[in-house]
Amino acid sequence: MEESKGVVKHILLAKFKDDTPPEKVDEIIKNFANLVNLIEPMKSFHWGKDISTSNKHEGFTHVFEATFESLEAVNEYVAHPAHDEFAAASKAAIEKFIAVDYIPT
Amino acid sequence: MEESKGVVKHILLAKFKDDTPPEKVDEIIKNFANLVNLIEPMKSFHWGKDISTSNKHEGFTHVFEATFESLEAVNEYVAHPAHDEFAAASKAAIEKFIAVDYIPT
Repeated sequence: MEESKGVVKHILLAKFKDDTPPEKVDEIIKNFANLVNLIEPMKSFHWGKDISTSNKHEGFTHVFEATFESLEAVNEYVAHPAHDEFAAASKAAIEKFIAVDYIPT
Repeated sequence: MEESKGVVKHILLAKFKDDTPPEKVDEIIKNFANLVNLIEPMKSFHWGKDISTSNKHEGFTHVFEATFESLEAVNEYVAHPAHDEFAAASKAAIEKFIAVDYIPT
């Protein structure tokens, strides 16, 4: 297993509150995706709804993945004003989330 | 955002029990990685330790990601005897895990 050099993956699992209107969820996802245009260290972004049928999702409904060149770049992203603004505008709709970073091997 | 056609990503977050010997963790990861050689529908496998510093990891220590061509292929993998054997041999060392599947967009 060779290590992919210079790539840190940032994975976020989120559960939106049940009473969040679908258009609000869509708006949050659109704004999340747009961060890649605003935050230079963020190199790519993908997302998807959980479609698992094995019932091990612990209620998480959405997966977001972003790619960075280093852990420092992840922290730069987290501290970026555009991320702050996005997080502040989204948090009322989020019931829970988990965020992890790893170097894929 | 164009949908990546024919790709379902399977993400598993795991926390190993604190008293699991490091060599047991290594063995489990090696056996997990080897499933890609045993289970035809599993197209790729990567893993990494959580290195996040933002403390939103909820205790999860490892990330595993595998790629499949469809959700049916994920379910074929989960039902495969080699997966059963791996899961049975590993579960005593796992404190908790979450598994989600998504089509990256």
